[in-house]
Amino acid sequence: MNGLMMNYQLTLPTLMKRAETLHGKKQIITRQPDKSLHRYTYTDFALRTKKLSVALQQLGVMPGDRVATLCWNHYQHLEIYFGVPSFGGVLHTLNLRLSPDDLEYIVNHAEDKVIIVDQVLLPLFDKFKSKINVKHVIVIPNAGQPIPEGTLNYEEVIASSDERKYIPFEGDENTAAAMCYTSGTTGKPKGVLYSHRSIVLHSMVSAYAEGLSITEADVVLPVVPMFHVNAWGLPFTCTMLGSTIVFPGPYLDPISLLELVEKERVTITAGVPTIWLGILNVLDATPGKYNLSALRSMIVGGSAAPRSMIKSFQERHGLSILHAWGMTETSPLGSIGILNSEIQKENIELRYDYRAKQGVPVAFVEIRGRNEDGLIPWDGKTMGELEIRGPWIASAYYNSPEQDDKFTEDGWFRTGDIVTLDDKGYIEIKDRSKDVIKSGGEWISSVALEGALMGHPAVAEAAVFAIPDEKWAERPMACIVLKEGKTATREELKKFLEPLFAKFWLPDAYEFVKEIPKTSVGKFKKSVLREQFNTYKA
Amino acid sequence: MNGLMMNYQLTLPTLMKRAETLHGKKQIITRQPDKSLHRYTYTDFALRTKKLSVALQQLGVMPGDRVATLCWNHYQHLEIYFGVPSFGGVLHTLNLRLSPDDLEYIVNHAEDKVIIVDQVLLPLFDKFKSKINVKHVIVIPNAGQPIPEGTLNYEEVIASSDERKYIPFEGDENTAAAMCYTSGTTGKPKGVLYSHRSIVLHSMVSAYAEGLSITEADVVLPVVPMFHVNAWGLPFTCTMLGSTIVFPGPYLDPISLLELVEKERVTITAGVPTIWLGILNVLDATPGKYNLSALRSMIVGGSAAPRSMIKSFQERHGLSILHAWGMTETSPLGSIGILNSEIQKENIELRYDYRAKQGVPVAFVEIRGRNEDGLIPWDGKTMGELEIRGPWIASAYYNSPEQDDKFTEDGWFRTGDIVTLDDKGYIEIKDRSKDVIKSGGEWISSVALEGALMGHPAVAEAAVFAIPDEKWAERPMACIVLKEGKTATREELKKFLEPLFAKFWLPDAYEFVKEIPKTSVGKFKKSVLREQFNTYKA
Repeated sequence: MNGLMMNYQLTLPTLMKRAETLHGKKQIITRQPDKSLHRYTYTDFALRTKKLSVALQQLGVMPGDRVATLCWNHYQHLEIYFGVPSFGGVLHTLNLRLSPDDLEYIVNHAEDKVIIVDQVLLPLFDKFKSKINVKHVIVIPNAGQPIPEGTLNYEEVIASSDERKYIPFEGDENTAAAMCYTSGTTGKPKGVLYSHRSIVLHSMVSAYAEGLSITEADVVLPVVPMFHVNAWGLPFTCTMLGSTIVFPGPYLDPISLLELVEKERVTITAGVPTIWLGILNVLDATPGKYNLSALRSMIVGGSAAPRSMIKSFQERHGLSILHAWGMTETSPLGSIGILNSEIQKENIELRYDYRAKQGVPVAFVEIRGRNEDGLIPWDGKTMGELEIRGPWIASAYYNSPEQDDKFTEDGWFRTGDIVTLDDKGYIEIKDRSKDVIKSGGEWISSVALEGALMGHPAVAEAAVFAIPDEKWAERPMACIVLKEGKTATREELKKFLEPLFAKFWLPDAYEFVKEIPKTSVGKFKKSVLREQFNTYKA
Repeated sequence: MNGLMMNYQLTLPTLMKRAETLHGKKQIITRQPDKSLHRYTYTDFALRTKKLSVALQQLGVMPGDRVATLCWNHYQHLEIYFGVPSFGGVLHTLNLRLSPDDLEYIVNHAEDKVIIVDQVLLPLFDKFKSKINVKHVIVIPNAGQPIPEGTLNYEEVIASSDERKYIPFEGDENTAAAMCYTSGTTGKPKGVLYSHRSIVLHSMVSAYAEGLSITEADVVLPVVPMFHVNAWGLPFTCTMLGSTIVFPGPYLDPISLLELVEKERVTITAGVPTIWLGILNVLDATPGKYNLSALRSMIVGGSAAPRSMIKSFQERHGLSILHAWGMTETSPLGSIGILNSEIQKENIELRYDYRAKQGVPVAFVEIRGRNEDGLIPWDGKTMGELEIRGPWIASAYYNSPEQDDKFTEDGWFRTGDIVTLDDKGYIEIKDRSKDVIKSGGEWISSVALEGALMGHPAVAEAAVFAIPDEKWAERPMACIVLKEGKTATREELKKFLEPLFAKFWLPDAYEFVKEIPKTSVGKFKKSVLREQFNTYKA
């Protein structure tokens, strides 16, 4: 027997309609390429988004068609976020930090029909435009120059459209709404296809008091790019709530961000650890210069935030970091580093320990860990690969059946993150599954060894990875970059590690190198190291 | 094209699983009939609920079958809340304040298969048990007496069951999970049938920072009965979050409640205005006696809370009332009296004005008002009947096709509440649609006239209602109960109202009566007055 409740589908146009109806006067603020601030309201946003929706359909974009963006964070990007799904189209954000080869591959794999490009990003677009086949190129004229021949002007596209023809999509909530490709360090990028339902449910959980705790009264600055898992869903969550949004445009340097936080009285912001490290340095160098009294939460994700950074912000500047964890495949919110009522009663150092973990799963996200012996106990010690399921977790990659082994037979997603789970449900990431070292049936965390080695006063960078071993299958090896003018020997490093780890964790080999190969986003390319030292004998 | 997200159905067993997994040590506390406090944990709760689920199926209860409860708020009721839907059964809470005739009608109309009764409520059950036909009567032995012959003992039912046979329902989220009958003042009670989906989505919105703002760290005391629209969903929301729950059992008097709030350091509580009025009287009479420092939010709903009460709590006791609005048909959360960022900047009296309104619709609830001219403008003045739609709003009543006119052709629910809507989206209830007086094409609020009349020093109670009029169709008439020892004439009352209302609003007739007929829950029975004075000439 079914309930007798309304069949009300969870779709994105509903979020915009609410902002327009209840919060029409609230502002959306954008730092433009010329550094001026553009301001308009949710009423303006809704009007232009409706025009965009109508215009794209008049250009021949059909429900299900992909519309790519190559854009910074700004109000036009928000219009596209809602305008494309508003008629059943699929928003496809492109990561402007990828190589032209990757971008070419992604646009062609997604079969994008239209691409919308920031004028300031045309130099990047020019590097792959001849290798893709889209029906229309639309340029957002934000560099104040004439737009190239053969492209459409975003402002003219909007101006020529009639918003009265707007008909919001109210179909099946499982319809695709957005897509995002992972920028994996190995293999080709893989497409994740979000539905209206998954984005709406993700927005709902984000609005929990113990989620990101956003309200209408908040002023939210998403530093995290809109091409990075939909800026962690913030544009959707904020629109649902009518929060003021502040978009930083292309200016992600610490000074520009701090000025924006102070001037607009930002209350919540979000970004990766490197952003906050840069800001911490500026705050430490110029104490008291910026009035950040409105700021109540700095959300960090993307990679593990150092405990010391969390502590420094809190103790030196009274600023609160909130750690969250997720992936492109998880929309991204999977877990959040809130302290439960038990831990809140603990001493401050233990509280910092917990704040530096990846947190507990949010409601409707289920987790488990698995190693070669099966599901791991929640003991805070045993390592296993994190598996996850929930209504906003990917069930497959777009047109990539060869990736089906990333999903278990009973329908969970294999995250590739090696974690421990404790009895309170807190996740702590220890490694990536391809990087963990499997030595004689035990798992060794390369991340833990690297962290320890980088605590040695002479070490600038350390990468730890597996080399083959006849007896143990794999053994750890370390590549070390020394700080300028400093020296250290293998024996010294070994002695330094000995008190910190079980004996079998200690690297069998150390190699001193000039630099460690890195990906476009600054992560160690351990696959290159593994190949290079494949036949190394300690 | 569909998204590629997991098909993860939103079902109630997921909420319990989360509490068990992450918050197993958290407490659920119950005031028992002997006034002692029963304590156990979510781990205990989950174990017993699984046993109950298995036992009910062994008793022959099938998916879709209704299991009725005649119970106060306590931990066993929570077990039934989850145990029945956990296998696809339908929880049916009975309002113990209804007449035996109504209860008989409801049980028979719902075709309940099992009824679970508090031992302390057997005297009420005995009044209609011979007129219903259920397969099993299960008695919760909370009066310390032997249970009657022919009934099952709830504790024995649980004890004899094997939780290892528990299989949580993970089917279609649109499956019915719970039902509740309205206790309308006119006509027969009507059944509302909630789905797993509607309850889960309602729980999600309740957890918003700008919803009820509940977190795991909260200690929540639902004074609102669990037979009253599922205690406004709090048992579900709290379980989802792992909040500590405090159940008051049968003791809803102000002193018992205040002692519980103090002793358990309750942070959030919820109930109807009469509960808080009683508590306000005690606090005023014994200032400083109770330490309520943990209490951060008192949610009020069910009927309009007087502005003066909200102000008195805030100014005399530092306690914050949060007004919400809803109905059995709306799960119930429809709107919430949070102050938006614009109103937060206004002066304190205007803020109280807004806190006494019914608030703005929560996310995914859409509202509109309609009068004889069509949809009303959002001007804060024009009255119309509130229509509402959303994913947790009823689309029909259970087996009551004759009630289909309560739903519009385009799928909105007609609430029967006459409201104004202002430009910020705030709802203010002016009347019930059957009570509003339609005079010469204009609507007159009976509630506003009654409120004014009851402000006269000689008036104890005033009911205003429509009498037929040849020229104007309807005209207002007032029935007045004078305070003991006080007098007032028709002319005096008319003069008293004149400066407050437009001339055509003033009642044509006044009648002094000994008492005003009332329903079981204390509302004026205006239908009786309308009939009595049907041929009255002013």
